[in-house]
Amino acid sequence: MYSVDLNSDLGESFGSYKIGLDEEVIQFVTSANVATGWHAGDPLVMERTVQMAKKYGVGIGAHPGYPDLMGFGRRNIAVTPKEAKAYTKYQLGALMAFVVSHGEKIQHVKPHGAMYNMAAKDYLLARAIAEAIYEVDKEIILLGLANSEMIKAGKEVGLQVISEVFADRAYNADGTLVARNIEGAVIHDTELAISRVVRMVKEGKVTAITGEDIEITAQSICVHGDNPEAVEFVKRIRHTLEVEGIKVTKFSNFIK
Amino acid sequence: MYSVDLNSDLGESFGSYKIGLDEEVIQFVTSANVATGWHAGDPLVMERTVQMAKKYGVGIGAHPGYPDLMGFGRRNIAVTPKEAKAYTKYQLGALMAFVVSHGEKIQHVKPHGAMYNMAAKDYLLARAIAEAIYEVDKEIILLGLANSEMIKAGKEVGLQVISEVFADRAYNADGTLVARNIEGAVIHDTELAISRVVRMVKEGKVTAITGEDIEITAQSICVHGDNPEAVEFVKRIRHTLEVEGIKVTKFSNFIK
Amino acid sequence: MYSVDLNSDLGESFGSYKIGLDEEVIQFVTSANVATGWHAGDPLVMERTVQMAKKYGVGIGAHPGYPDLMGFGRRNIAVTPKEAKAYTKYQLGALMAFVVSHGEKIQHVKPHGAMYNMAAKDYLLARAIAEAIYEVDKEIILLGLANSEMIKAGKEVGLQVISEVFADRAYNADGTLVARNIEGAVIHDTELAISRVVRMVKEGKVTAITGEDIEITAQSICVHGDNPEAVEFVKRIRHTLEVEGIKVTKFSNFIK
Amino acid sequence: MYSVDLNSDLGESFGSYKIGLDEEVIQFVTSANVATGWHAGDPLVMERTVQMAKKYGVGIGAHPGYPDLMGFGRRNIAVTPKEAKAYTKYQLGALMAFVVSHGEKIQHVKPHGAMYNMAAKDYLLARAIAEAIYEVDKEIILLGLANSEMIKAGKEVGLQVISEVFADRAYNADGTLVARNIEGAVIHDTELAISRVVRMVKEGKVTAITGEDIEITAQSICVHGDNPEAVEFVKRIRHTLEVEGIKVTKFSNFIK
Repeated sequence: MYSVDLNSDLGESFGSYKIGLDEEVIQFVTSANVATGWHAGDPLVMERTVQMAKKYGVGIGAHPGYPDLMGFGRRNIAVTPKEAKAYTKYQLGALMAFVVSHGEKIQHVKPHGAMYNMAAKDYLLARAIAEAIYEVDKEIILLGLANSEMIKAGKEVGLQVISEVFADRAYNADGTLVARNIEGAVIHDTELAISRVVRMVKEGKVTAITGEDIEITAQSICVHGDNPEAVEFVKRIRHTLEVEGIKVTKFSNFIK
Repeated sequence: MYSVDLNSDLGESFGSYKIGLDEEVIQFVTSANVATGWHAGDPLVMERTVQMAKKYGVGIGAHPGYPDLMGFGRRNIAVTPKEAKAYTKYQLGALMAFVVSHGEKIQHVKPHGAMYNMAAKDYLLARAIAEAIYEVDKEIILLGLANSEMIKAGKEVGLQVISEVFADRAYNADGTLVARNIEGAVIHDTELAISRVVRMVKEGKVTAITGEDIEITAQSICVHGDNPEAVEFVKRIRHTLEVEGIKVTKFSNFIK
Repeated sequence: MYSVDLNSDLGESFGSYKIGLDEEVIQFVTSANVATGWHAGDPLVMERTVQMAKKYGVGIGAHPGYPDLMGFGRRNIAVTPKEAKAYTKYQLGALMAFVVSHGEKIQHVKPHGAMYNMAAKDYLLARAIAEAIYEVDKEIILLGLANSEMIKAGKEVGLQVISEVFADRAYNADGTLVARNIEGAVIHDTELAISRVVRMVKEGKVTAITGEDIEITAQSICVHGDNPEAVEFVKRIRHTLEVEGIKVTKFSNFIK
Repeated sequence: MYSVDLNSDLGESFGSYKIGLDEEVIQFVTSANVATGWHAGDPLVMERTVQMAKKYGVGIGAHPGYPDLMGFGRRNIAVTPKEAKAYTKYQLGALMAFVVSHGEKIQHVKPHGAMYNMAAKDYLLARAIAEAIYEVDKEIILLGLANSEMIKAGKEVGLQVISEVFADRAYNADGTLVARNIEGAVIHDTELAISRVVRMVKEGKVTAITGEDIEITAQSICVHGDNPEAVEFVKRIRHTLEVEGIKVTKFSNFIK
């Protein structure tokens, strides 16, 4: 039987600032990437999000980001690998405190935003992040972009890795994501997006923007809870996956 | 045989800003309170400080503070107990990641600055901090001001506690510290300061500012490494303690 | 003819975080207190808010707060008067840059949150804030709580001052606000709230919580734009004031 | 007669963290680039630095940087030109408040660290910074790297510009600085460094790393006050310049 995970960024509120329909989307996803206070989130939000994830049986992951609350962690910052490693440990540890105090375990780490994008292409940066996780707890799973340097570095360091795909993004022939500024990078047809994901999970293939089929490992699908339409999409993709006979469950349940 | 611990705040540098003679003072103390990035310290500094503490066999503690880098955590902030609890978990967890990645264990938590002073007098705040520690790891020792609400709360929550004394501070008849703005609050005579500490350790007594002897539990002495004179004082107090037959060792070695 | 100003806190969004229905409420108020980046707001938001205020002909004021984004500037912090003075200059200057670059002038300064509340009762703190404004530009008006130390300090320093009242708050016999934790501190009856304001403006009187009439100077009314109900209230209070023959206009138009 | 300015970064201390021998170096320079709180500096430090600059008759400039205290503003951050423009206004305004409150005027703006380096090569970024200054006060002088996009953008926007050179850095044939990672980029021979500067000021020429003489405009020389050796170098370069008949004075005294 096929299995796949649905992951979403949660706990991105900060102080008086509320963002995301966490309570709604969490009921339909299987893994939560919890913001760890640098690009979003704060300790009270982290406590609340961990409780919520526990309540819904969702896999809990740390979502470390760059120290850039004003830019929501989405701006590239030229950090050194050594800095990225220390920043990852710090934020992973911070979330871990909330997780263990609720009797749970960290399932995974998924770098956020610019850290995610930069590490997908920069092996040394990816390696530093992977080493940080390994040194803190080698049982923690690394969630990264399919076919990226992040996945490669995770494997080489000795971590278990999970490859993530995007329903609404086009892929290049080499398996990387088509850059957002290129025509056709984003797939707006919801039905097409979902059917592509089903094929990725079942056949391990997707049609690249250049027309040929390429291989892709789809173990987790990134979804969003920013607004009602996003939540609606999550419900639909989950429903379709289940109708297609694919088990939707957190990846710690099916990782080898 | 008598035993006592010498603790010092370490790892307070931040980015390009260097503060404290950490490398020098750490050779003479037995426990290190490591800043956790909110009032001082950053992830690179934390990594370095944990390595240094491991090298010298010093007990490693988290030194959580208020979110006030500009005020070095020394300004009272009206946080709620719930906030203090979440802030303590966050910072304790962050340090824990570095500690476990070096194969070490967290020995203790000592709140910093304004958080320390406020929790010494405010039971609800103290209780929230103690609960945070207990929920993360009940084996962690709480280091707090002798005769304070912090010590009381730690015991009631179920933590092991260590009472800290100050060599250079006068005490009130009720065992609390004389406020700094009162004449005679600070003891400038080094010999007197050291002899008071020796008596506190051996007899469990100190002469209050009002003249009578009071009982005090002196399990750890707070010392500083801010400047060469401070380091010199640490060497002297350590030497005198050893000459007096008192074993100077980290408190995890002698706590019951 | 009677005149009164309606002021509201605006520009409190930060990075990806949106807060407040600024575009809606600004059409019904006459003065805007623009957050200056410490407790809320960021440079892009400030630029946008100043443009919006200019478009609607609203008086522009700086809304300096404590360095506490996580607490939205609502938590008391034990800053020294010297610190408060420097913090006020910094934030006032920052907003001034946006205001002058749009060919406008700063109308006023209103301290935010905990800074506002603390300065209402602490003369030395209030004085430091007033001096900061005076030293930067003595033409700037100080907006503070009626009957407070802030108003007193502003006058003594030589600033023009505007007394602000709250429609939904009860007053003590000495003219101060009834603390929120006391029964009856908040007036939930909208009609009563509005009629009290009308009387404050026309008669300079309000009935204290203890039953007697007291004198109060009501030159500006603080209103909110946090949610649709708040905006609705602003429309109603403005409408009633105008029906009552009171001119609603920014206070720089009527200050002596 | 030849004239040149000596500029130095000052006011980089933050809270309890002290950096730089400001009091010593300020006596030998003619323009001060004052940190504005984002990469270094805080309001109390800014107040103190402005007072000190006034006392010594030194030209006062804003030294805006990226929001990266942990990285001291030295890490490239992918900000948009719009963000850079707003950040520059914010920080320039903040310093302006202190400057006007001491009866002084802002002489110049010099972007700091990564913002300086990125703007030297990226015209759109440089243009945004120049526009920010122009919109706030078109009398303010822009201090930037000789032969850079920053100087070009400043001129095109309509600002007066001052070209800065480095005594200890090698130049490429196109007038740009040799990147630090290239052999020979830094000139360690103090005598050679000073004689190169004298020639740049008198002849407007310098020998590039490739051997040929190139043209360079040297109106201000960047010097440092980080340590005693740096201060010693400033004294020497100033002495030599004066012996060579070059007037050392702030650039607002000689700019056309």
